[in-house]
Amino acid sequence: MSPVFNVLAFIYPGNDILDFSAPVEIFSTNPPSGTPRSFEITTFAHSSPVKASAGALTYQTDVLFSEIENKIEEFDILLIPGAGLDILSKYLSTEEGTKTASLISKFAELKPREEIGHRIIMSVCTGAILLGASGILANHTVTTHHFGFDMLKQIADKAAGGDSKIDIVKKRWVDVGFTDQGVRIVTAGGVTSGLDASLWVVETLVGKESAKWTADIVEFERRGRDDGWGA
Amino acid sequence: MSPVFNVLAFIYPGNDILDFSAPVEIFSTNPPSGTPRSFEITTFAHSSPVKASAGALTYQTDVLFSEIENKIEEFDILLIPGAGLDILSKYLSTEEGTKTASLISKFAELKPREEIGHRIIMSVCTGAILLGASGILANHTVTTHHFGFDMLKQIADKAAGGDSKIDIVKKRWVDVGFTDQGVRIVTAGGVTSGLDASLWVVETLVGKESAKWTADIVEFERRGRDDGWGA
Repeated sequence: MSPVFNVLAFIYPGNDILDFSAPVEIFSTNPPSGTPRSFEITTFAHSSPVKASAGALTYQTDVLFSEIENKIEEFDILLIPGAGLDILSKYLSTEEGTKTASLISKFAELKPREEIGHRIIMSVCTGAILLGASGILANHTVTTHHFGFDMLKQIADKAAGGDSKIDIVKKRWVDVGFTDQGVRIVTAGGVTSGLDASLWVVETLVGKESAKWTADIVEFERRGRDDGWGA
Repeated sequence: MSPVFNVLAFIYPGNDILDFSAPVEIFSTNPPSGTPRSFEITTFAHSSPVKASAGALTYQTDVLFSEIENKIEEFDILLIPGAGLDILSKYLSTEEGTKTASLISKFAELKPREEIGHRIIMSVCTGAILLGASGILANHTVTTHHFGFDMLKQIADKAAGGDSKIDIVKKRWVDVGFTDQGVRIVTAGGVTSGLDASLWVVETLVGKESAKWTADIVEFERRGRDDGWGA
């Protein structure tokens, strides 16, 4: 039987709605009748309720950041959404921003849970900039929203204290590779790329059939990692 | 100058996350710097907080259904998301379900605000079934999620007290037409179809350039109304 992957989805003030709602939709799609769920979603934020994009939607999270900090090893997938560059820039200079970057690097240093065998950090859109701030993207090839290339380079270099040797490419998503402890890093391009990246995660962790079922339920024609918007 | 359209987005227990989050994302995307926003979003539910799809995300709405009932004429776009058929079936037999269907038919009888010139009811996915229950889809050609064809026909017939003469087709979205009072009805297909349908609404109300800007920001390759999933 396929294990149940615990997904930890981060929300912060002003973050993009679809950046995390699209992956959450994919991970929470009902499997075929009689099949158990493969993913359980937990949302968290520094404070709750929290307003996303321009205050358009307000979320009450399942738990608070302070409650999560000491039990992140219980989660298998950490989902980091993006936001507008001005919002991110301010956020990174706050204590909450610093703590978020620390949590990401801490998660990257956890071995996968033995019974699960996988651990993934997934950014969508400019969420890659938060990964960049945590230092985990140095020496890697990654993607982000097309507006975020310069800022991601700058933030990754700052985290590295010099040239981070990050290589930022235009893709639907990038399977970045594994940290020393075996945590896989996946970066998706802008906003709707999160649909394709999370369907690929479903395919990788649960199987092709499950990914096809989910894409059919949401009536979505998938894109390959080299395709997609503007390609 | 383009007017500001007031969007009223409905949320109910167990409704699909992307069905309303995708249109809200599209309508709340920041326009180019210096350009005013064309849409303001207000969310409402019978009670708040409200949990969507399998409890995966919890929303705190801007207002309650009871507060909205007597001022729906202030809103230009009513957005109705879908849910699983079992959830919808139970919901329609509750007082909240009945009140929701009544609100939809009341909205369909309001002339567009003079200064705005448009009023739209938009369903995504099986949200069309709530429109069907309100009786406004009789004698019309519409679409819905591919799982929902039979139930939509049955509910529309029930509302009509006989053959509703509804014609349900497989499309990315359908511009259904106008009510006697000039309210436009738009039905989108399953889940991600809401992206295309709302981009088409942006194009229709604000212009092609605005729709292109928004699609680029969310890195989405649009589908025509006859294309899309499984086409």
